[in-house]
This record gives sequence, structure tokens and C-alpha cells, in this order.
Amino acid sequence: MKISILGGAGFLGRKVAAHLALQGRLGDRPISNLTLFDLTAPLKPDAGFPVTTIAGDLVDMPPEAIPPGTDVVFHLAAVVSAQAEADYDLGRRVNLRGTDAVVDACRRLVAAGGRPPRVVFTSSVASFSGGQDALLDDDARQVPANSYGAQKAAAELILADATRRGFLDAVSIRLPTVIVRPGRPNRAASSFFSAIVREPLLGLPADLPVPDAFAAWVCSPRRAVDWLLHAAAMDTAQMGLDRSVNPPGISTTIAHLLQALDAVKPGASKLVRRVADKEIAAIVGLWPPVFDTMRAHTLGFAAHEPVVDVVRAFVEDDREATLIERGLPAPPE
Amino acid sequence: MKISILGGAGFLGRKVAAHLALQGRLGDRPISNLTLFDLTAPLKPDAGFPVTTIAGDLVDMPPEAIPPGTDVVFHLAAVVSAQAEADYDLGRRVNLRGTDAVVDACRRLVAAGGRPPRVVFTSSVASFSGGQDALLDDDARQVPANSYGAQKAAAELILADATRRGFLDAVSIRLPTVIVRPGRPNRAASSFFSAIVREPLLGLPADLPVPDAFAAWVCSPRRAVDWLLHAAAMDTAQMGLDRSVNPPGISTTIAHLLQALDAVKPGASKLVRRVADKEIAAIVGLWPPVFDTMRAHTLGFAAHEPVVDVVRAFVEDDREATLIERGLPAPPE
Repeated sequence: MKISILGGAGFLGRKVAAHLALQGRLGDRPISNLTLFDLTAPLKPDAGFPVTTIAGDLVDMPPEAIPPGTDVVFHLAAVVSAQAEADYDLGRRVNLRGTDAVVDACRRLVAAGGRPPRVVFTSSVASFSGGQDALLDDDARQVPANSYGAQKAAAELILADATRRGFLDAVSIRLPTVIVRPGRPNRAASSFFSAIVREPLLGLPADLPVPDAFAAWVCSPRRAVDWLLHAAAMDTAQMGLDRSVNPPGISTTIAHLLQALDAVKPGASKLVRRVADKEIAAIVGLWPPVFDTMRAHTLGFAAHEPVVDVVRAFVEDDREATLIERGLPAPPE
Repeated sequence: MKISILGGAGFLGRKVAAHLALQGRLGDRPISNLTLFDLTAPLKPDAGFPVTTIAGDLVDMPPEAIPPGTDVVFHLAAVVSAQAEADYDLGRRVNLRGTDAVVDACRRLVAAGGRPPRVVFTSSVASFSGGQDALLDDDARQVPANSYGAQKAAAELILADATRRGFLDAVSIRLPTVIVRPGRPNRAASSFFSAIVREPLLGLPADLPVPDAFAAWVCSPRRAVDWLLHAAAMDTAQMGLDRSVNPPGISTTIAHLLQALDAVKPGASKLVRRVADKEIAAIVGLWPPVFDTMRAHTLGFAAHEPVVDVVRAFVEDDREATLIERGLPAPPE
């Protein structure tokens, strides 16, 4: 099985690559080749199969990024929410023209006699709007309130159409806000959701731009990776024309998240400072905090673990590496 | 008031231009300039204000197509359904890159200090799917079953986002199948809906590719033009983030349409030949035949006239010109 990860140097890309390297298989098929593509060449994981890393621009992707015989493409490359809001042209280029480039690369494989590759695409809860009291079901319309969400929703349409035409075989997963992200804060408007857990667990302060009662639709990196792998191996025949899915995330309030933080490291939430930020609050305030995800359950996407496990997973999976990456001393236990 | 029509040589573009020329005003404001843009230079209507015609490619639009000070842009340029299905690259280029070009042209006016122009965009019922028993309300999701519809839905997202950002002020109208189109059959999958009325009224036979019981969501050219003009002049503040509207078309069956044809010209429906066409039926068979259009009524879009008036309107407005254009003799009454 030949697999490509576009955005292979990113947070989820690295986790998916590490998982594939460890397992050596996807679903019930052994992996023969893995290609990792990103703006800067991704690191190679230790794997029992050949791994190729390529640096380049998604829009002008070299053919080697999705080589002949590719079975699965993880299309994770994106310009994130606050950045797409700050730079319209960059967001449109990467999030829309980049998706067209993925379609065209797959079309070329099909035109040359190959099978349409499975394309697993990370769309986002940011493609919806609704406010704090919204509960969205599987038939909810995407009325985005930010450019990132609009571009993701448009990319879903393009991928679903390319699927119908036989150019590829897409599954778009509208990821909740993924917490706890390792590393440093990034330019996603939702960056603080991770920071208020991660930074205190590193012994550092973090700013909270929204009220404690603020509710959000979140998922853990573990669950996000599970869902991406499930989407890569699942039977798509039952999806019909609609190639998008709202996965079974979990709804939490900031207060509940900080309670979970304190359960894992007593007193840690004292490092969280209330610093209102209207710009951030305006963006995330329109992301609906609850979804009814019947379709995802029917399609076999794994249910979510409790919030306290999400906090614990950061300590188990990512704290060590984040301390090293950022040159920080281990905080007192 | 300065107005541009992109797709000014097309069927609706010419009708909108003729109406503006006749009225000399849009809403309560006099027109100072009209620019007509298309692949081939549109004909100039007789008008009491200057009319400029420009030929060019939408994607590489010259700045004169939307000159400084433009108040309203009618963005009607498109690659139609059967053609977008036959030529993916062309459809994507015109229907998506073309819409980006409209956004960029408006952005340049705003960056130079102008007001965001109103952009009236013709989206389509083809952006929905649902089958013959569907009744869609204003919250129905667009799950397109053809590339044209997918591109229109994506363009709506791009225009709504550009509106939110202040680049322009969009109203996207999801037009029903417009009947009766004058002139010749075109490459829209829905072309037969017009042909089975138009051709018999010209004394010519026409092929019907679907059963007589087939139901469709249609509107007349008169009503389509009304809606476009209303969208150009209406107050958009009440639309919020959602800049698209399902206008109040009318649901009709083929049988009912042929009955209306015979009411206008007795025996005319004998010229309609049943010639099943699976390809056409597969495309139009997924366009929902009924909408509940409460939002459009609230926004002031005019209600539709009965089907028999739609047939009569072709005789009154377009039969003469179509006979001349196609070099046909007047049929016996």
C-alpha cells in the first residue's frame, strides 16, 4: 500500500506518519511506501518500509508527491484560521488552489490507468457558524463566519465532485478544535484551547481570551489520528454523494477543561490568566459547541474519551517532546 | 449609478441590459453608465446613458470590465451544466477562477477607496440534489450531483466570505431552470425544458428525454430578470452571513407544461417526441422539484406567475426574435 501525506511536517501529519511507521499497515494491508510532503522536508520516522520526504509548494506539487500507484493521500496541508483571515490571498492559494492541485494529481494517476486514490481531507468545525447555543445535526448547512471555514467548505465541494467523477475517492472530516496541541502556540484562532492546558503542564502561564463558561467542540490528537486512519481504510460506498462527516468530538466548557487540568496536575489552572481578546472571541464564538454525530457513528468513527483523558494524553504522548523542542526544563511535579 | 454585466451577451444578460436601458434606472437611482462584458462583445441596447461593451476572458478580465465607481455587478458568466460536466477544466476555470477574478476586481476598487459593489450572482437549483420526491426548505444543504452545481455552491461560499470581508456585497440567487429560453438549444442539461415549448411554438419538433410525470422547479425569464434587479437594489443588511437565496420559482410537471403549451397553441404538444436520454435524465433527475421559499418572500422577491403565463411570455417577448435569429418562417397560427 502506497501512502502520501501532504502537510507531513505538521502536527497531525507527523502523528499519522509515526503511527503508520509503527504499525507497518493501514487497515489490513501492509504499507510498501510512504511519501511525506510539506513546505519544508518532513522528518523521516523509523519505519520498516521506504519513506520519501519532499519539500515543495502544494500548488506546484511535483509528481513525486503523489507517485503512480498511490492508494491513500492524507491531504492535511492548510493555512490555518487566523492566518487565512490575515492573508486572504495566501489562504485562497493554499486552501483552494492547493486542493485543486490534489485533484489534478489524482486525475493524472487515473488518466494513466491507476485506481482513484482515497483522499482523506481535514475540513473543520470552523466551516460552520451558530453561536454558543447551537446544536448542529448531520444535515446542518455550512454558513462559515471566517475565510478558513469558507475555503474548507468549498474544498469539500470540490473533493466530493472529484469523487463523483472518479478522479479520487474522498472522505472529508470536519475536525473539531484539536487539543492538546504540542509544541508552540500557532496562528489558529483556536490556539488558546491547547495553550491553557499545555503551557501550565510545562510550568508556564497562558492567556485565556474567552469566559470560563465558553463551550467548544473539541477532540484529542489521538482521536483525530484514529479518525483519519479509519477514513483511509473504510468502505466509502455507503457515503453516497456526501463525502463529508462530522466526527464524534466532545463538547466541553473552559471551566470543565481547567477542572480536568487540575485533576491531572493539582493547582495547574492557576497559571491561566483571563485576558479578553475580542478578535479571537469573535472568530471562535461562532463555532458551534455541540454536534449530533449519528452519521459518523454509523460510518464506524470511534467515540470520544472523556476530557480528563485528553489532558492525560498530552502528558503521556507529547509533554516530553515539547519540553525538548522548546528547550524548557521539566516543571516540578 | 454605474453597472456592469459580466456575461452581457448571454440570454439573461441581454434581458437585464435591455430592461436597464428601457427604465434608465435601478431601484430609485438613475443609471449613469452600463458596461457589458462577455467572451464576444455584447450588442449595445438603445439607452439614454453611455453603454460600453468589452470582449474578453472573465479570468483575465480587464479593469474596464468593472470600472472605478461601479455600484452593481451582475455576475452571470458561466459554463453551463452539460458543458461543465463534459469539460472539467473549463468549468472550474470559468465558474470558480472567474468568480475569484470578480472578487479581486471588487477588492481593487475597495482598496482604492471605493464602496464594495453589490454583486448579483446567478447560482442554480443544480447545486442541490434530492430526487423527484424532495421538498427543500431554506435550510437545505447543497449536496451537488454535477460539477456545475458543485462549482456554483463553492462560488457562493467564496462570495459570501468576500462580502463578510468587505470586498463586495453579494446576493446569490439559486435560479430554477429558466423556461422558455429563446434562440437555439444550448449545452445545459435542462435545455429540453425550454425546447419542448419553444420548438413547437416555432413549428418545429422537440425531443423529451424524461417521462411526462417528471416534475421540475422552474421560473420564467421575466421573473428571473425581476429577481436579479431586486437583488441589485434590495437592502442586504437583513441577510446576515448567508448571502444566498432560493427564489420563489414554481413547480411543474412536463404534463402540466405541455397542457399549458396546448392552451396557448392548440395541438402544439403533438410536436414533442418522447426520446429517453439516460444521461440527461441522470443529471436533471437529481434536481429537487419543490422548494419552500419563505426567506425569499421575506426578502421581497416577487412571487411567480402560473405556468400558462410562462408559455405566453415566450410568444409575447421572444418568439419573433428567435424566428429571425434562426432564419425560420413564421409558423401557421
